Parts: sequence; structure tokens; C-alpha cells
Amino acid sequence: MSGREFFTARTVAEARAGFRPARRTGIETVPLAEALHRVPADAVSSPTALPGFARSTVDGFAVRAADTFGASDGLPSYLDLLGTVRMGAAPEVAVRPGSCVAVPTGAALPDGADAVVMVEYTAETMPGTIEVTRPVAAGAGLVRADEDVVAGGPLVPRGRPVRPAELGLLAAAGVTSVPVHSRPRVAIVSTGDEVVPPDTATLGPAQVRDATASALAGLVADAGGMPVYAGIVADERGALEKTLAGLLDDSDLVVVSAGSSVGIRDETTAAVSALGTVWCHGLALKPGKPTLLAECRGVPVVGLPGNPLSALVVFRLVGVPLVWSLAGCTSVPPEPSTRARLSRNLASAAGRLDVVQVRVRDGVAEPLFGPSALLSVLTRADGYVVVPEPATGLDSGTDVEVILYR
Amino acid sequence: MSGREFFTARTVAEARAGFRPARRTGIETVPLAEALHRVPADAVSSPTALPGFARSTVDGFAVRAADTFGASDGLPSYLDLLGTVRMGAAPEVAVRPGSCVAVPTGAALPDGADAVVMVEYTAETMPGTIEVTRPVAAGAGLVRADEDVVAGGPLVPRGRPVRPAELGLLAAAGVTSVPVHSRPRVAIVSTGDEVVPPDTATLGPAQVRDATASALAGLVADAGGMPVYAGIVADERGALEKTLAGLLDDSDLVVVSAGSSVGIRDETTAAVSALGTVWCHGLALKPGKPTLLAECRGVPVVGLPGNPLSALVVFRLVGVPLVWSLAGCTSVPPEPSTRARLSRNLASAAGRLDVVQVRVRDGVAEPLFGPSALLSVLTRADGYVVVPEPATGLDSGTDVEVILYR
Repeated sequence: MSGREFFTARTVAEARAGFRPARRTGIETVPLAEALHRVPADAVSSPTALPGFARSTVDGFAVRAADTFGASDGLPSYLDLLGTVRMGAAPEVAVRPGSCVAVPTGAALPDGADAVVMVEYTAETMPGTIEVTRPVAAGAGLVRADEDVVAGGPLVPRGRPVRPAELGLLAAAGVTSVPVHSRPRVAIVSTGDEVVPPDTATLGPAQVRDATASALAGLVADAGGMPVYAGIVADERGALEKTLAGLLDDSDLVVVSAGSSVGIRDETTAAVSALGTVWCHGLALKPGKPTLLAECRGVPVVGLPGNPLSALVVFRLVGVPLVWSLAGCTSVPPEPSTRARLSRNLASAAGRLDVVQVRVRDGVAEPLFGPSALLSVLTRADGYVVVPEPATGLDSGTDVEVILYR
Repeated sequence: MSGREFFTARTVAEARAGFRPARRTGIETVPLAEALHRVPADAVSSPTALPGFARSTVDGFAVRAADTFGASDGLPSYLDLLGTVRMGAAPEVAVRPGSCVAVPTGAALPDGADAVVMVEYTAETMPGTIEVTRPVAAGAGLVRADEDVVAGGPLVPRGRPVRPAELGLLAAAGVTSVPVHSRPRVAIVSTGDEVVPPDTATLGPAQVRDATASALAGLVADAGGMPVYAGIVADERGALEKTLAGLLDDSDLVVVSAGSSVGIRDETTAAVSALGTVWCHGLALKPGKPTLLAECRGVPVVGLPGNPLSALVVFRLVGVPLVWSLAGCTSVPPEPSTRARLSRNLASAAGRLDVVQVRVRDGVAEPLFGPSALLSVLTRADGYVVVPEPATGLDSGTDVEVILYR
């Protein structure tokens, strides 16, 4: 490792634990229909008990449980049928000893009843008389008025992106808007004299279209962020510094997809250093060593390696958690994964995290090798395997966790 | 099982294999920035080779490999330095035998060179002469002009939602718009005389706010669909039939979140039967038995159980795959999951699929029980465990797969 390039190299674990900018996005209130996967700024409590009234959970007859004790096919209980509860309406009659009221599933329990007998265990042998052939315990066949959620009880926790089922619970409680953290604005700056916009029809000699920015935008969006393309900047410290300075006012995170040569990385480092504090330059990570983490005027700045594959590996490991964190997320959604057996040995160096792209077929993870300059290694992969920092490699046949792409 | 209710009950496996409406959404072309997770209507091929020119993958010197054979610290090769290739520019000089040209990472390889020596294995001991202390093989330190993707080679496959890295590869190839299937329009109809909109401030006696529609909308969005709220319809066959008929013209899927009582389910069945063909009424699934699958004028219709928890379980198992399928998706993104040990026995019936909500702590999956009328059982869960159809239960301590919510 060259001292010039990597004057403050860290492990990925150190970076995750130690590089924790305090910045959080502001709070906005969004309607329920836009709250999916947004991060609640605070826990939301229910203004009311749910379901709000005792409800039948079966089609049957509301009874006093004591009236059914000992009931059997041979010796049924006979109850007077006093009426029927309509859905969505208050019961018009109460259950008295020796009587019952018909209730459909979901209807309110009449006063006086403490259980509901399923229709399957009843018969109306004479008009107005219900024969009950099984006993029910008090509380059977119903939910209490506050059994789903008590008044003031939790609907969604703070800091965890809202899940589909939680939208339902919020709706049930009449909570139709939720204060959430704003989506982090993530400025994506590309550098490199060879880099031109994706919509460039005809390339000059030795030019390449900007692949990294589009892919980063996808990762940012998946992490709940708002990608903001900040264009392509010349490989020149002054230009880069000016661009970065302009972005800091209006961004929650600035990502620099740097040129890949040493000289260009040095320019990026110099520009970032002029605007703030470099936390580390160099991660013990393969691919992804030339990574810069910094904070400028309270805005985290991530300088990525020049190779698109390396840049995307680094951004998944270090950038995505930052985007979530900026939005106040303390419980990042789980990623899909699978267990598989390695098809061959993987070499690594102790103290370095290796990220190896793999295809998975029939429970076997086959590493895809190739220069990190090849983006297609990533698009052909089903996921990746991590060789942890202490390991010097993984043997063929090892049972590994594959983080799957989606 | 009552013959009246479940005249054509099926297993979930049968439903997935057998209920496969042919409908697919139309095709629209979207810009790259909107293509994330959309389903390509066809495979996209690269109009050009990538990277398009032979590029150095290291900072170093472009050489003829033969000129470095046998080079060592003790006996270096000495090469004349002819110049430097600038990033993004055509090389101005070619490499001749006995010479080299400086190249930064990512620069074009000059004519005549077939390898790049890393700068670490060189020294410029005299101005204009580079000392090489290690041999390189032909092809080392570079990628060929078509090594990432050959002209006409695959960028993204048909039918698999576009991943972040694929956005990068498309951008690199200059493909800035992609023909994708339109998002399926999923009409969500709620029924039930007790059901009122979520924004109802004060509930009447025995009324409940519509929880299921909001949660379904979240599941639809996660599956790439476009939820369309179709409101709350009275529990009356005529009203329901009229509403459904109106929705069929403008929907790719109609979901009926039905009232939970038997009578109401019968109304739904009658209305759907009048408009098309019922494929099954009743799934061997707990919770979720009273599920209706039908096709009306080429539009699939899913009738869900009335309990929100049951409805959401069913929609995850049966509805979500339908939404993907309507968009032409043949490779549904993987879901997050984890392995855990069951904390207690789970009973089931052979031939029935059981879906059990669980919390996961320290590798232990703890089942959450409670009436399926309680939505909070779902929001408190971290995920669910499936007891497969042939099993009569799962023993405490069994290693199970938990599908995790996100």
C-alpha cells in the first residue's frame, strides 16, 4: 500500500462504526399513500383503541358462555333467539340469560354477551330457538375492543421504514398522514476527462459514457434517497472544489465518482480537504481500496473508486447505510440472501474485506472473476459473497451467505 | 369445510401453477432514470462493444510484453519512454520494440502495446528511460475493446426487473431509454357495510376504517404495480357487480377486499360469477381460506378474506406474483429471509398451507398467535414461516426459513 495514496486507510468495519455523520434530513408530513418505506420521525401512537368495539370473529350467535356449559349433541342448550346484529350498526338488543343474538363475522357484540358460538355448532330446530351443541368459554369467538391496539398503543416505531401492513394499521386508526424524514438529497458528481454523458451519440476516441452515475442513482433510490445528478466535472482541483462547494448547500450527501488514476484521486482528495475534513482515504476492501470518506460543512462526502464495479461495491457497503442513516433510519430493511456452497477457493488477505461477485445455481455459488473495470461482472452476478476481514480466504465447498441483487 | 362456501377449493400450489391469466400489460418506453425495477419487454442488446477501446486498468507503462520477459530487480528491462497518453484522448504515439508509453488507469492503450506494467514495478532512473523490474504477460494490465460487452451482446434480459448495476451498463452502452411493460393497474375495491374510509374522523357504532386497502396498495407498489383505490362498495350483489364491471375496462387486476361474513362472501362470488369464470373459491390456506380467484373479460379478479391479516397473507402469496406476472416478469426479485429455530411446536393439517407470523430474536423464531382479525399480529411480526402442505406441523427447534418483511 502506497503511503501517498492511502494515508489514512481503515477497515470497512471501522468506517461503518466510526464514520457516522450527525446530519439528519428535516421532517415533512406525507399522506398515507406516500408513506410506504419512508422513515417515521417519531413513533406513531394510536389515538384510539382498535378495533374500538368488541367484535365477533365468527358467524354465529352471541351468548353468555355460562349458558352453554355442558352443552353437547346429546344434551344441547336451548337459547331464545332475540334478534340479529347488522354489520356496521349498533346492536339493537342485549343478550339476557337463556337467550342469544345472531351475529355475522365482524359485527359488534351485543351487551350482555361474553362469547360467540360458531354457527357450525348450532341449529335452529324450532323458529326462535337456537340449539347449542358445544360449550364456549367466555371470550371465545370475539376480539375485545382494544385487543388489536390499546388507545395510545404503538402503530409504527420511529426510525424503521414503514411497511405495507403498517399502512393498514395507520389507516385503521384514522392516521392518514405521517411525519417522516425527508428523502436525503444525494448529489452525484462524476469526474474524469474521459467521461461523457450517457446520451452522447458518438464517442470520441478513448471516451466512455458515464455508467456509474446511473447505477448509483438506482442504489440511492433503493435506499430511500433522492439522486441528484450534478454532472461531469473536469479532472482539475479548482473545478472540482468549486462544484463541490456549490453542492454542499443543497445536499445531504455528496458522492464523487472519481476518475480512476492516482493523479485524479489526488485532485479529488485535495478538493475535498480544502472544504472539510477527510475521515479516511483508503479502505481495506477489494475491490474498492481508493475510497475517500469526508465531512464538509456538515455534509458527508464519499469519494468512490473510478472503476464502476468498484464504485458500486463501495457504495453498497458504505454509501447505502449512510443514505438510510441521513433519513433517521435506525433499522435498515433486510436484504435478500441465500446460503450456497462455494464452487472454488477464494483467496484473500487477512485484515481486508473481499467482495466477490457470484452466480448461484442449484445451491452452488460460482465466483465471477475479471478486472474490476468490467461492469458486466456485476450485471452477470446474482449476488455477492463477503470474505470477512480476519479470513485469509474461503475454501471450496464452504457454506457461504450470498447477498442477492434485486 | 362447508360445501356451500368452498365449492372449488384448491391448494396454494395448485393456484400458483394453475391460475395463470394470460394478460400482460402494454409496452411503454421509459428514460433510463425511470427504468429501475421496471420489467424490460425484450432483452436489450448493446449497440456497441464495451469499453469500445483497449484500456489500461492500472497506472503504469504500455509495453510490448516480450520486452519485459525475464525482467527482475537484479536485471531490469530498460525501455525508452516515448510519451504519455492523456485520459479521454487518442494516444499520440505507438509503442515500438524497446519502448514504452506512460498510461494512467482508464486511458486508451497505444498501438503496438500488448500489456501495461504497473508503475510499482518500474522506476525512471534516467530521464526518458523506464526500468521495468517484473515481466508482464501479453494482455496484463488492460481490458480489451470488447471485453466488457461484445457488440450485440446482452445488457439486460427480458422479463427481469432492471437492477441498479444494469442502469450503469445501459448508460455505458448509450442506451438511454428502455421499452418496459407498463405498471399493472390494480383496482382495489373494499366491501363491507361496516367499512368506512380511513379519513373518517368519528366512527359510528360498529364501524371500522378500511385498513386493508392501504396495506394492499403498499404490496402492489412493491410488486411494481400501480394501486388504484376504487372505494368502498355496499354489501349488495348489484352494487358490487356494477362496480366490478366498470373497473374491468381500465384495470389489469381487480382485488376485492371482501366483507368477512359468509353472506357477504356469497354476494361477491355471485357478482364475480356473473361477469366471468370463477377458477377457485377457497384455498387450503390458513389464514386465508375464503379466497376467490376468477377471470372476468380477461382481467384476473382476486377476492380476499375479510380479515385484514388474512387478506394480506393471501395477497402476498397469490396476488403479488400475479402483479409481477401481469408486467411480464418471469424472474421475481428475491425476498429477504433468514434461518431461525422455532421456539415452539406449530400444528397444521396435512394438505393445508399454514402461514405463521413470527418475531425473530437471536436466531429464534417465536410464533405470534392471535385471531386473524388482529392486524397488529402482522405489524408486530418480523416475517412469516410457512408450514408446507404435506406437513402436519413443525416441531419446536426445527430450523425454518423466515421470509422477512421490509
